[in-house]
Amino acid sequence: MEDKVYDVVIVGGGPAGLTAALYCCRDNMSTLLFEPMLMGGMVNEATLIENYPGFPNGINGYELAATLLEHAKKFGLKEEIAAVTSIKKDGDIFEISSTAGNCKSRAVIVAAGSNKVKLGIPGEKELAGKGVSYCATCDGPFFRDCSVAVIGGGNTALAEADHLTKFASKVYLIHRRNEFRATSIVTERVAANEKIEKVTPYKAVSIEGKDQVERLILENASDGSKKELTVDAVFVAVGISPNTDFLKDLIPLEEDGTIRTDTNMATSVPGLFAAGDIRYGSIRQVISAAGDGATSAIAVKNYLS
Amino acid sequence: MEDKVYDVVIVGGGPAGLTAALYCCRDNMSTLLFEPMLMGGMVNEATLIENYPGFPNGINGYELAATLLEHAKKFGLKEEIAAVTSIKKDGDIFEISSTAGNCKSRAVIVAAGSNKVKLGIPGEKELAGKGVSYCATCDGPFFRDCSVAVIGGGNTALAEADHLTKFASKVYLIHRRNEFRATSIVTERVAANEKIEKVTPYKAVSIEGKDQVERLILENASDGSKKELTVDAVFVAVGISPNTDFLKDLIPLEEDGTIRTDTNMATSVPGLFAAGDIRYGSIRQVISAAGDGATSAIAVKNYLS
Repeated sequence: MEDKVYDVVIVGGGPAGLTAALYCCRDNMSTLLFEPMLMGGMVNEATLIENYPGFPNGINGYELAATLLEHAKKFGLKEEIAAVTSIKKDGDIFEISSTAGNCKSRAVIVAAGSNKVKLGIPGEKELAGKGVSYCATCDGPFFRDCSVAVIGGGNTALAEADHLTKFASKVYLIHRRNEFRATSIVTERVAANEKIEKVTPYKAVSIEGKDQVERLILENASDGSKKELTVDAVFVAVGISPNTDFLKDLIPLEEDGTIRTDTNMATSVPGLFAAGDIRYGSIRQVISAAGDGATSAIAVKNYLS
Repeated sequence: MEDKVYDVVIVGGGPAGLTAALYCCRDNMSTLLFEPMLMGGMVNEATLIENYPGFPNGINGYELAATLLEHAKKFGLKEEIAAVTSIKKDGDIFEISSTAGNCKSRAVIVAAGSNKVKLGIPGEKELAGKGVSYCATCDGPFFRDCSVAVIGGGNTALAEADHLTKFASKVYLIHRRNEFRATSIVTERVAANEKIEKVTPYKAVSIEGKDQVERLILENASDGSKKELTVDAVFVAVGISPNTDFLKDLIPLEEDGTIRTDTNMATSVPGLFAAGDIRYGSIRQVISAAGDGATSAIAVKNYLS
């Protein structure tokens, strides 16, 4: 990290951050990007991405991540593999603290993404991308005429269960309580959908299968009795957790931990922009995250000039 | 065109419309897309697109357009090569009139793009993509250490002239009046930039060159005298014209003819969404248009359910 004031610091190396970097670097802004883990972010976890426009035959997530990184590097991206721990603003200058040291910048693009809350049960990690999914929009179409399970009791879980009946022949909706937390309109729609079978009060205890999901093992939350469902996929929808902890002292967060922006990706803090899954209302897709990244870069250019 | 009520009609077959179509079709919505000219839209005109993430070596615009079309068709896109002439809303149903007939839908995504206003002078069309450009963000980096001209007197022209000095060694700013229409802050920045030479009051009369732009021929707006500039590129920034005429009776347009949306691409008319260059504040880039398209498709899904 150089001891200078960068034009822009980008926090996060997923599709939003890498696209922002591509645009900032190509526009000759001095740019530094922080990523604590694997460059490319959550994209790396996707086995096949069918809906990133320009790849009609689909593309493996790891491959797309590598390509996005190569693309940004072509325009001179410098990255720091470190976690940003806090950001402060002193006058017009941002002070960024990270596990690899501190630096300063005139603008910041936050593109740190979010994590889907995991169940933490056996088979979940092993079969991720092999039937275990955290996104019905991304992976639903892979399971036409199949039996699938959705785990969760909130709006997202019920909406995804309803959506999945467009593809799957049978959708089990698993929730550890008998009551759902979703709004009544969504709950009524699910109740009226004949393809959806509610399985409550059950919690998932393990996911089984050899190369693909084959079975979901459940435990009754009242009497502890076990139950087994034959399914081809398990969609986990028990919540999301945006990576915004390090921003708490800089900007007020939404109730779900996301950051609100306008259509230019500007937040309420001048010079601070947010892009991708971290943004309130984001559709959490690779293509929209990349679009956000480009928009935030142009917004930074306009802000700095 | 079938005599049924489509879930969604998409107006425009550029990156925004094709990405919206990809998402809508993949999500099993009944979808019809109208495009009056060449599928892919303005992208077809770009010789090399360097900043669509995922193509580190760049991609020819025609090729990217074909790939986006192939991708949407893979999920069942049905397109109608016809111009939409008007859209009305009767209750919850949209009635779309086109040069190929009429149809109905429950939602509409407008992604009809915008045209850059042309100069209409000899050499402009012939050398488009060969030094004649309508987008400094897209094409500026191709002209490092070159001499370039910017034509126009508004905010965009002056901001682009300033931006281009990051790459070009010399930027001529051509305007037919002595006074610029830009805000004072931008005008002052341009005045202070030593790389920019104002050439006023001159109008461009022709662009010359064999395989690439070589010369720009100017005519003095006061005395009619001619002048020749040796340049490698001509950036035309005399205005944009969004393709929104057919919407005038449906929704109020912004002063520049664009449509205002929220971050979900929703307009003030329920069920009507806008994506891409047609949107107020759009950065007019392929990647952001595609991102808009995906966001609008998910918004339609949520609206319909």
